[in-house]
Amino acid sequence: MAEIIAIASDHAAFDLKSALVTWLRDEGHEVLDLGPDGPASVDYPDYGYRLADAIAAGDAARGIALCGSGIGISISVNRHPAARCALVSEVLSARLSREHNDANVIALGARLIGIEQARACVDAFLSTPFAGDRHQRRVDKLTHPRFHKDHA
Amino acid sequence: MAEIIAIASDHAAFDLKSALVTWLRDEGHEVLDLGPDGPASVDYPDYGYRLADAIAAGDAARGIALCGSGIGISISVNRHPAARCALVSEVLSARLSREHNDANVIALGARLIGIEQARACVDAFLSTPFAGDRHQRRVDKLTHPRFHKDHA
Repeated sequence: MAEIIAIASDHAAFDLKSALVTWLRDEGHEVLDLGPDGPASVDYPDYGYRLADAIAAGDAARGIALCGSGIGISISVNRHPAARCALVSEVLSARLSREHNDANVIALGARLIGIEQARACVDAFLSTPFAGDRHQRRVDKLTHPRFHKDHA
Repeated sequence: MAEIIAIASDHAAFDLKSALVTWLRDEGHEVLDLGPDGPASVDYPDYGYRLADAIAAGDAARGIALCGSGIGISISVNRHPAARCALVSEVLSARLSREHNDANVIALGARLIGIEQARACVDAFLSTPFAGDRHQRRVDKLTHPRFHKDHA
């Protein structure tokens, strides 16, 4: 399956980004690396917005967002209604983010989890299908935020 | 300090919401309970948007957002640029969300963590100050998402 996976980080997660890019490409995935290109200090919102824009534009079907805790970049990605970004630190949450929320971006904290946990989360994120059904109505409300004004 | 704390959930987190409301009021906090009022099935985005709107309107200074995994409601709260919602499952992340991201909402997964962990996370969230400095510039970019178009 030739689904493109976009990835972006801040400086604190630059090494984790490099490790995940290498692993994903070794696994046969096409990866769109949105930066940064080195470990110099950057602002996570710049890269979170870049990733959300790539998802919204259809340049990638899935995204991986990384910063020190995962918190800052997950907030920035979720500013865009086309992105559904789940911040996770273990595999059960990664799986639930797909089954219940149809997450198209996963966020990880490079200073909080190790490489094996990160790989396991990404693997669950990429391999778990969306469960649909009642969850679809809720996901629709995430995609069209103003929807709630008529239905809350 | 008479800071009002707003709280909202879905049905999966209704019991956790009730337990946290009781605890927070016992601790002397003023709590704005935005619902739901019972365990009947609801859609988490409706309550996430309600919480974000309460923060944006100044009806509450802080918020607590709860659903089964915390993922869905954290996405919905973060749709609003006035909200900075951190999904956490342990105390270190709760502390970092305040120090680095000036988070004004904390999201917790009622089916993933227990009541003591939830209380400890809320306690860290309420008691940890923002570190400011270089983090302020990044937080400003979360508050004004379009900012990045000129500066990325």
